[in-house]
This record gives sequence, structure tokens and C-alpha cells, in this order.
Amino acid sequence: MEKNSSNMIPLAENSPNKQETVCIFGTGDFGRSLGYKMLQCGYSIVFGSRSAQTSTLIPKGTEVLSHGEAAQKADIIIVAIQRQHYDFLTELTEVLHGKVLVDVSNNLKINQYPESNAEYLAKLVPGAKIVKAFNTVSAWALQSGTLDASRQVFVCGDDNKAKQMVMDIVRTLGLTPLDQGSLLAAREIENYPLQLFPMWKFPIYLAIGLSAFFFFYCLIRDVIYPYVYENKDLSFFIAITIPNRVCPIVALILLALVYLPGIIAAILQLHRGTKYSRFPDWLDKWMLCRKQLGLVALVFAFLHVLYTLVIPIRYYVRWRLNVYVISQIKDNRTDPFNNTNGWISDSYVSLGILGFFLFVLLGITSLPSVSNSVNWREFRFVQSKLGYLTLILCTAHTLVYGGKRFLNPSMYRWYLPAAYMLSLIVPCIVLAIKFVLIFPCIDQPLTQIRQGWERNSKGSKQAYYNDSKSAV
Amino acid sequence: MEKNSSNMIPLAENSPNKQETVCIFGTGDFGRSLGYKMLQCGYSIVFGSRSAQTSTLIPKGTEVLSHGEAAQKADIIIVAIQRQHYDFLTELTEVLHGKVLVDVSNNLKINQYPESNAEYLAKLVPGAKIVKAFNTVSAWALQSGTLDASRQVFVCGDDNKAKQMVMDIVRTLGLTPLDQGSLLAAREIENYPLQLFPMWKFPIYLAIGLSAFFFFYCLIRDVIYPYVYENKDLSFFIAITIPNRVCPIVALILLALVYLPGIIAAILQLHRGTKYSRFPDWLDKWMLCRKQLGLVALVFAFLHVLYTLVIPIRYYVRWRLNVYVISQIKDNRTDPFNNTNGWISDSYVSLGILGFFLFVLLGITSLPSVSNSVNWREFRFVQSKLGYLTLILCTAHTLVYGGKRFLNPSMYRWYLPAAYMLSLIVPCIVLAIKFVLIFPCIDQPLTQIRQGWERNSKGSKQAYYNDSKSAV
Amino acid sequence: MEKNSSNMIPLAENSPNKQETVCIFGTGDFGRSLGYKMLQCGYSIVFGSRSAQTSTLIPKGTEVLSHGEAAQKADIIIVAIQRQHYDFLTELTEVLHGKVLVDVSNNLKINQYPESNAEYLAKLVPGAKIVKAFNTVSAWALQSGTLDASRQVFVCGDDNKAKQMVMDIVRTLGLTPLDQGSLLAAREIENYPLQLFPMWKFPIYLAIGLSAFFFFYCLIRDVIYPYVYENKDLSFFIAITIPNRVCPIVALILLALVYLPGIIAAILQLHRGTKYSRFPDWLDKWMLCRKQLGLVALVFAFLHVLYTLVIPIRYYVRWRLNVYVISQIKDNRTDPFNNTNGWISDSYVSLGILGFFLFVLLGITSLPSVSNSVNWREFRFVQSKLGYLTLILCTAHTLVYGGKRFLNPSMYRWYLPAAYMLSLIVPCIVLAIKFVLIFPCIDQPLTQIRQGWERNSKGSKQAYYNDSKSAV
Repeated sequence: MEKNSSNMIPLAENSPNKQETVCIFGTGDFGRSLGYKMLQCGYSIVFGSRSAQTSTLIPKGTEVLSHGEAAQKADIIIVAIQRQHYDFLTELTEVLHGKVLVDVSNNLKINQYPESNAEYLAKLVPGAKIVKAFNTVSAWALQSGTLDASRQVFVCGDDNKAKQMVMDIVRTLGLTPLDQGSLLAAREIENYPLQLFPMWKFPIYLAIGLSAFFFFYCLIRDVIYPYVYENKDLSFFIAITIPNRVCPIVALILLALVYLPGIIAAILQLHRGTKYSRFPDWLDKWMLCRKQLGLVALVFAFLHVLYTLVIPIRYYVRWRLNVYVISQIKDNRTDPFNNTNGWISDSYVSLGILGFFLFVLLGITSLPSVSNSVNWREFRFVQSKLGYLTLILCTAHTLVYGGKRFLNPSMYRWYLPAAYMLSLIVPCIVLAIKFVLIFPCIDQPLTQIRQGWERNSKGSKQAYYNDSKSAV
Repeated sequence: MEKNSSNMIPLAENSPNKQETVCIFGTGDFGRSLGYKMLQCGYSIVFGSRSAQTSTLIPKGTEVLSHGEAAQKADIIIVAIQRQHYDFLTELTEVLHGKVLVDVSNNLKINQYPESNAEYLAKLVPGAKIVKAFNTVSAWALQSGTLDASRQVFVCGDDNKAKQMVMDIVRTLGLTPLDQGSLLAAREIENYPLQLFPMWKFPIYLAIGLSAFFFFYCLIRDVIYPYVYENKDLSFFIAITIPNRVCPIVALILLALVYLPGIIAAILQLHRGTKYSRFPDWLDKWMLCRKQLGLVALVFAFLHVLYTLVIPIRYYVRWRLNVYVISQIKDNRTDPFNNTNGWISDSYVSLGILGFFLFVLLGITSLPSVSNSVNWREFRFVQSKLGYLTLILCTAHTLVYGGKRFLNPSMYRWYLPAAYMLSLIVPCIVLAIKFVLIFPCIDQPLTQIRQGWERNSKGSKQAYYNDSKSAV
Repeated sequence: MEKNSSNMIPLAENSPNKQETVCIFGTGDFGRSLGYKMLQCGYSIVFGSRSAQTSTLIPKGTEVLSHGEAAQKADIIIVAIQRQHYDFLTELTEVLHGKVLVDVSNNLKINQYPESNAEYLAKLVPGAKIVKAFNTVSAWALQSGTLDASRQVFVCGDDNKAKQMVMDIVRTLGLTPLDQGSLLAAREIENYPLQLFPMWKFPIYLAIGLSAFFFFYCLIRDVIYPYVYENKDLSFFIAITIPNRVCPIVALILLALVYLPGIIAAILQLHRGTKYSRFPDWLDKWMLCRKQLGLVALVFAFLHVLYTLVIPIRYYVRWRLNVYVISQIKDNRTDPFNNTNGWISDSYVSLGILGFFLFVLLGITSLPSVSNSVNWREFRFVQSKLGYLTLILCTAHTLVYGGKRFLNPSMYRWYLPAAYMLSLIVPCIVLAIKFVLIFPCIDQPLTQIRQGWERNSKGSKQAYYNDSKSAV
């Protein structure tokens, strides 16, 4: 429901449905912005401030009082002050007793302080009901109404009634409150707005590294080698030809790396004979960023598709085809149709299309709203079964593309094999091990282990709980 | 909000913010996994078990007691036991009186028992407050932290306070509780994780059937016929040429089948003169899977687009074009530009592009998060108006593609018409009937019927309620 | 969770878990449909009606009584009557005292009455607890079970317990209740189903206007001019060639218009020295529809990509290439490879591919479920940084496409420059001003202003509140 329109509403000072009075401690930018927005939505606002001098900036229709006086006028007090200035609140303990204190603060670094700001506030003012909220909303967004980004306001607190009051305010401002439970969650809520794609860092750096390596590898083979030995200037290959070699290679390797940690985990579990030992940290982290790895791989596959489809409109390609026709005419020959070439050309393209289609399907099911609307069994089916099928199709696409050229010695320049050969190493290893793992003699103990069975446990009786749940 | 990080937290035994104690009945895989996860999040855990022998598997820092002793230590008891072992709980009725019993069980088949497990539990222990929860989460997911799939935990129960307590635990574990109302909902919640795309089965089987039929149809016309009569080996057509005939045909037929049930329903309603009679079952089911039919059609359209765009990079196509040029040279002629061919070629491609674009738009609006953010009127506009426009464009695309070839007798091989002609039957019927239905003399009574008017009703007075709502 | 199946359930008259009794005032289409659905879900239904004559239409298993009698039988009364008939409720004030009255009405126009229907109802029956709900659901959807559209039911009301009771009913019917806060929200909830893409109107009209202008511009230059001077019939250009000129032009201009209002706002803020003055109305509205502008631009870019990729399969293009080869043969020459042309052709295509890819990325992040799962900092990074990068790449794509032709006088026909030159004006202006704005000497005061600093304020002390929040 678009609530943008509410921004157009003028100050509702004479609105008939006057809402309750809210007190805001602090007349900084965020406090003023929030006050202005709440005023528009029908609340009465009282600012609590050390001095009443900043009054020119204060929204019209509000009062500025001392902290103590302001607090007495309202049941809800929004603390729009930085953590390092919280100390003075200890003096107001009596006035604040039983009131709802809303902590809206953020830090500059993740885990900057030993405890969250909200928990610190709860210690300072033990009699008040502390609620954490609004820290994910920016002052600019509140004022400009450009709330295209997340309208979600994470709310947590130990007092349910206080939390409910704050969530009602959030809703009235046209935002979506999300109850995050007790005040323990404040730490994560405070860290949240400081993150910049934390799960994406490793996959993106890895993709950049791989791209750079294969870019220079192809540069040496496809541009520098012909320049040195044949004195041909093929520098324009940098624009399309080389990217179209690098993209599929990186996509294939990243896709294989999505499935590699699962295989390593399976081997570890088989080796240890239990699933209750912790995986090494690097494996844990790797497993947690598989979705992001897969999506980065999809990006490279998407670019590969675009780069491939524009091939026939490239000037270079058209020129080469013309030269080929003209050479046939001059030699007065018509090259006959080669059936094998027809098969190879059509089948590697077809495998690529099917692989890309499944890849896009995997990408769509990883959209939050789609993955939320499928159950665990359906998600496993798509991500595991269809995922492996995608990997098989893409690997086959590359193998058939190689076709007859694999053993052709002319493909080696400066002893360097063609780049696509290197891209096949990881996927082939993953598929080979996976093939071994699905043999019944290996799959069965693995399934047992994943259902909680332990090889070394004395009480190795059959798992007590329903199989259908733990079978992955 | 990514809560994956919480998985990295070590056992919080010495955490200052100790949460309440929770009791878990059953030391099977799911019970242990849940206990381990809750321990990490700061809860104290007591296991209730028939014997204390399985203790080597139990997470460190927890106790294992008899069921009765364990139940006394906590207000919330999670029953991680299979339904068939619930009987012993009747002995604990006294201890469990007033406590919150959380049923986490699943069945092996949909509707396995006459009543849901949670309702059965409620009968066995009448004094306890039963809450259904956690059954959609897998033990493996809880342990590995790979919660990329749904983080949603469906919760239902008759006691609101008990439900709230369980929902707080769900939130603390980093999952999203979804209140599903009273314990009546338990049946559906228990069936949910057993489903594997129930709404998708009919569309997918239909698409596979149609694809197989048209594949063999094209195989006979395009591969076997030339082989028999002209001894040409065109077997490589299987890779791209035939799929690129089958995909658009299946896409067009499926798209028409999305709109056919609506038309049948309209005719039925006109015939019966009321909207209050039930439709036949097959029509009901067909109407409910229209969205899935449309999305499967989109998949085939997407493949058709890819197969079409790769045409110019196929070896076969390049070879044929070369042969054509060379033949012109040899005959010393230059085929003049045919304006009609220019028009036909460009307009069928353009119609196809516009049809595909609208199709993609329909697909995007059927994403859960997008369809949730539009209102009913907007959704109808997109799915009905734009949907019919898509069908018209795609049918026109096929008609213009046929172009001058429709009446060409050489198109019939073994008396079989070209496959695309067959694909036009259903869409043309749908569009023709729809065209009749929008005539005012037919549209008006239909609209009245859909607003609740009945032809045979004595009290056929004007519908009482606001028109804007029932007008579809 | 698909709840469609619940529609298959027969009337549950003999269900063991009989739910509470609900009274429905009004036996019109919506009242009956809702009653039927609630009956299926286990509720007992009593209809309140002026007369008992309409009974043939009433679902079996329900009673029809007078309004007063019906109201006494239930705690919840759903008022399925049009607003203009609400008057009679004043007579029932006593019976309705303390009961929950659910207003489900809609209006025919946005803001039709001075106050919302629910608030009007609250005035008429002061003793009742008014809850607004169900107005976004259509009678047709309730009956046919085709709830593919939004399952969201917006609920608001001043009494929390009454609201909770209604939300429980909503959940039992398989719909998703969304708490919108106090009864003040009823106005917006009532306007919601009357909207038809309100934020999309300006972007779509603008795009249509621009498309029409450039279509006729290209028609004059590319079809009429050759017809007049060279007597060539190129009318088939209308199908693909001209759309493929218009689409990229409109896409580029719209994309630039997404970033223009931000730049105008920055200049205004720098000029005024404060961020607390309101922007002019047109600028406010423009800023609020930037997302929609960007998505319309993406649509045109998508069409441009498709129109470009089909170029090599067009009959006209193949014919022209053939003629070119044949002319080379006849003149007994082979045009040598031009390295500059190779570079220009490949690099403008490559720039276009990268620009389109980033554009698609921007589109994906504007999906509601994706933008909800990123925080404000991440959203700004994508929409601002990546957005400008997209604009730069697309502008460069057009500039390089122009290449050597910019100063070629033969490009001017009837003194009209090529259309793509016109498309470069707005993006170049936007990029030039943005380039100036990021100079430190201008960026610094702008950042200060956006953090709440005022040039003319006496108390121009450092902003009180945390920087990381207001820095945009």
C-alpha cells in the first residue's frame, strides 16, 4: 500500500483526530525530522533539549522544554541523542519511571560497544520500558518521503505493551514495524544499518579475482601471441571477444564452487561418522554464502548470453564471413555441409540455452518472496536437484564446445591450453565426487548420519524422530 | 535482516541475559537440533526422555531428566516425539496442566490421520495449551544455519498468550513467526511441508505431454519425411530447429488454456443465469492453476526467444546463407528486394517481441511480492486486459509468420499440416468467443450475474451491495 | 502457504470444531459471498436484513433475522451495506453497544466523503467498537477462490482486542491481515482499492509522449525523406527499424530524468542554504515517481535489446549483406578490415551490454521483496552509485555509436539531426552538473545542509545527531 501520499498532507495542527503527545529528547537532525513527520501524522510533539536556543530549526507547532519538563508531558519519549550523551538521563530516573523510552541510535562501527545502545539505556534508566526502533530509517528519508527503500522498522523490547505502542506509531507514520522479540535483539538491529552487503563480499572479490586472471590469460593467448608471431593487431578483442571468453569461464567455476562445499561437508561427515562436530570455520562461511556465489555466477552467465547473441551484428564477424564467401567464390568451390559440425554447433548451443534457462529459474527461486512461498522440500528440490542439473548442462555445454579441439596441438600457444579447458577442472571434480556420493553404499550411511545417527555412539539406536524431516 | 551471523555465536552458557528454561520431550535428531540452537540463543534446556542413556548425543550444558521431572522445570514444553508415541503423555496430565505444549510433528503422508497431530495432542492433554509450530523447519537447517529457504514458521493455537510466547522463541532463533490463527489451522500446517508443488503438477504434465506430441509430429515432418523422400540427413534438427518449433507452439496453446476456463465459466454462468451454482470440479481445479499454466507458458516462450536469437550463429544457417550467395553469383543474378517479404519478416518479429515483453510483464506481476503490492483492480487490469493483449499479439505473431504459406499445398507432408497451424486452433477459438462475450448484449447480463443477480430468483431486485467490488 | 485447497472443503455444518457465531448485516452480493466463505470455514452465520424475502439466495445453513435480532446473536457484526443506508443503525445503538462492528464498505470515488465510512459509522454508533476490514477483497475472489491477487486484508481500528478478533477471522479465511493502526487509517484503506497505478501515470504518459514525438521524427527522416528524394519505399521500417531507434532514445532520456530531480533538489538546497524549506510541488511529485520512471525506462531498454538482437534474422538485413558481398565480387575487390571500425563496433555494443546489465540489476533491486531485504545504506549504494554508473555507460554507448558520424553533414536531412543526438542532451546535462556537484568545495556544504546545518541559522552549531544516518 503506497503511503507516499501522506507526505503531501500539510501540517495537521487543526486535525480533529489529535493523537497522543510524544516527547522527543534531542533537537538534532533526526529528532527534528521525526518530530516533523509525526506532527504531520497528527501527534503533538514536545522537544526536550538542554537549551531552548535552537528553536529556529524546530518544526512549527511544537514546544521546546527542558528534558524533565518535556518528559512529564508524554508517556512515550524518543531518545534521539548519541549514546555518549546518555549519562544525563540518570538524573531523570524518577520522571522516566514507567515511561516508554525509545532508543533510535546507531553506531559508527559494527559491535562498537560491549553491549547494545538500547541495553545500555536500560541499565541507565532501570525503571523505564526500553524499546529499540527507528534506527534503520534515515532522517533524509523521513523528510523527503522517498521511502522506496525498506519501509521496515525493526522493533524490539522486553515490555510487550510498550512495544505495541511504538509499533502503532510506526504504522501511523506509514512504515512497517517488524517485531524482533526481546531487547536482546537490539545488538543485531543496531548493526544492521552499518552493513554493506556482508554476505556478498567474498563471492564478488572471488569473481573479480577470477575475471582478472582469465582476462590476462586470454589477453596473452589471443592478443599478444598473434601480435608477436603474426604481427596482427587484434586489440579490439578486448571489447567483446575476451569478455565473452572470461564470463562463461567464471560463471562455470563459480557455479561449481556453489556445490563444492556441500560435497566437502558430506565427505567430512562420512569421515567423522557424525554430524554433530562443527565444520571448520572456512567451510561454514563458504556454505553460508552459496546463494550469493550462485547469483554472481548467474550475472556472468547473463553477460555471456548477451555477448554471444550480439556476435552476428559485430563488424568483425560480418567482415570475416564476407571474406570467407569471397574466398570460396575466387577458388570456385562451395564448401559442402559437414553433418558433424552441424551436430556439434547445434547441440552445444542447445545445451547452453537449457543450462541458462535452469540457471535463471534458480535465480528466480532465490528471490526472497519466492523462496518464502515454497516449503523446505520444494526449495531443496529446486536448489539441489535442478542445481546439479544446471551444473551438468553447463559443463556439457563447455565440453561439446571444445568438441574436436581438445587434442588439437595447435590450440596450445606458449604451452598454454585454451582457457575453457581450465574452467572444466572444478566442475568435473565436483560432478565426479557427487556421482560417487549417490551410490547407495555411500548414500545410505550419509543419510543415516544426517538423521542423527552416530558411528561411535554406544547408544546407536535408530533415530527417534520422524525421518521425513531430517532427510535432506 | 540476515541473521546468519547468529550461527557463529558460540554456546552462550555464560551469557548475562539468560532466557527462560524450555523443556524438550524427545532426544531424537530434531529435538537435539532444536535444543542446540536454543542453547546458542541463550535458553536453558532440559530434555525429557524415557532413559538417560542417549546422553552422549545431547548438547553439552543441558540436562536429561524423566519426562515428569523435566516438565516441572519449564513453562514451555516442546514435544519432539512422533505422534504414535504421544500416548504416554496422558499419564502426565497433571504436571502438564496449564503448560504450553508445542507440537512440532509432521506426518509421512498428507491427511494421514483423521485429525491433525496438534488437535490429537489437545485431546490427550486437555489441560495444556497446545501450540503448533516449527514443523516447517528441518533439523538440518537448524544445525547448518543454511536458512536460505523459508524462514517462516507457521504458528497456530487457541490460547493467544501461549502462541505469543512461542512466537517470541521463534523470533529469538532468527526465524519469522506467522500467526495462522486457531488450532484448526494445524491440519494445513502439517500438510504444508509434505507438498511438492501441488499446483504445478497439472500444468507441467500437460506441457510435457504437448511437447512430446509436437516433438514427434515435427520429427516426422521435418526429419523423417526428408530422409525418406530426399534421403537428406537432417537429424541435427533435433538439437535446435525442432525445439524452436515445439516451444512457441506449446507456449501459445498453454497461454490460450489460461483464458479458456474463464470463458467456459462465463458461458456456464450465462446458461445457468446465476453465479451461485458450483462449477464442475475439473473447471474449479483448472481455474485455480491458471497462474501456474501461464508461468509454464512463459518458460516455453523464453526458450523460444533464446532458440530464435541464436539462429544466426548456427553453423547450418551460416552455411545455407553462404550457399545462397554463391548460387546468386554463379547464376550472375542479384535477387531484388521484395517489399512484401520485408513487411512480413519485420512485422511478425515485431509482434513476437511485443508479445514476449507483455508476457514477461505478466510473469513479473505474478511474483508474490509484486502481486501483494498492487490492489485487486490493478491486478485484474494487468492479468485480464494485458493478458488478452498478450494472447492477441502472440496469435497475430503466429498468423503473420504463416503468412503466404497457409494455403501452399507443399506445406502438407504426408497430409500433415505444419505444426504451427495446429497451435492456432485453441487461441483462435478463445479469442473468437471472447470477442462475442464483450458485446454489450452479452456482457451486460453477465456483469449482472456476477454482481449477484439471479435470473430465476423471484426477489430479483437490484444487488444491494456496492457495484465497484463485484465487477470483475 | 497455498490455502486454495480450503475452497474445496464442503459446507462444514457438522464440523466438530464449530467456531463462534458472526452476524452479517446486508444480504447483498458481498454479504452473501463472505457468509458462504465463513460458513465453509466453520463459523455460524446469522444474516440481518430488512426483509426475509431474499432467502433463496442465502447460503444454506444460515438464518435470516431482523437486524436487531441478528445483532443480539453475535459479538461481531459485519456491516455489508452501502454507506448511504447506514442511518438505520442509529436505532440499534443499544443492541450494538460494546459489539464489534466491521465496516467493509468501499466508495465509488477517491475521497468521496469528508470522513471515511468507518469513521462515519463510529459517529453513528458511538458505543460500538469499529474495525475497518475486508474492503480490498472482492466478492468474486471470495467465491471463486482465485486469490492469486493480494491476499492482504488491511485492518484498522481503535480497539486492539476487537481488531485482534477480526484479524483472527481474516486468518481463518486463509487471508493475511495487515494491522494498519488506528481508525485514522480507514480513509487510506478505503481509497486503496480505487487506485489504478497512481504513481505510474506520469511516467507512462511521459513515455508515450516521447515515443510518439520520436516516432514521427524518425518517420520523417528515415521513411518520408528517402521516399521524397530517392523514391524508395522503406515503409516496412515502421515495424522494427524505427521502434529500435525510438526505444533506446526514450530509455536514455527517462533514465536521465530519474536523476535530474535529485540534482535540481541539490541546487535548490545549496541556493537556499537549508533543507527545511519545502521543495516546489512539481519537484516533490517528480521525486516520488523516480522509481516508476526508471522502470519504464528499463522496459524501453529491454525492447531495444530485443529489437537489436533480432537484426541478423531480418530479411532486409540479410538481403543487404548479400548485395554487399555480391557487389564486392562483381568489382573483384575484398574490402580490407578496418581496425577503427572494429573497435567502435565492438566497444559501443559492449558498453550497451554492461549498461543494460546494470539497468536490469537496478530493476531487480526495486522489487519489493528485494528492496525490503537490503538496508538503507545498501539501497543507496545500488540506486545512487550503480544508477549513475548505468547512466554513464548508456550515455557512452550512444556517444560511441554516433562515433565518426557526429560531424558528418550528410546526417542532416531537412536540417534535422539524427534522433540519437537529441537523446544525448538531457543525460549530458545531468552528468555535467553531477560532475560539478561532487567537487569537494560543493559537496561539503551540501552534505552539511543535508545533516541539518542551516546557513542563516544563528545557532549554527554542529548537528547534534549521528552523522552516519543523515549522510545520503
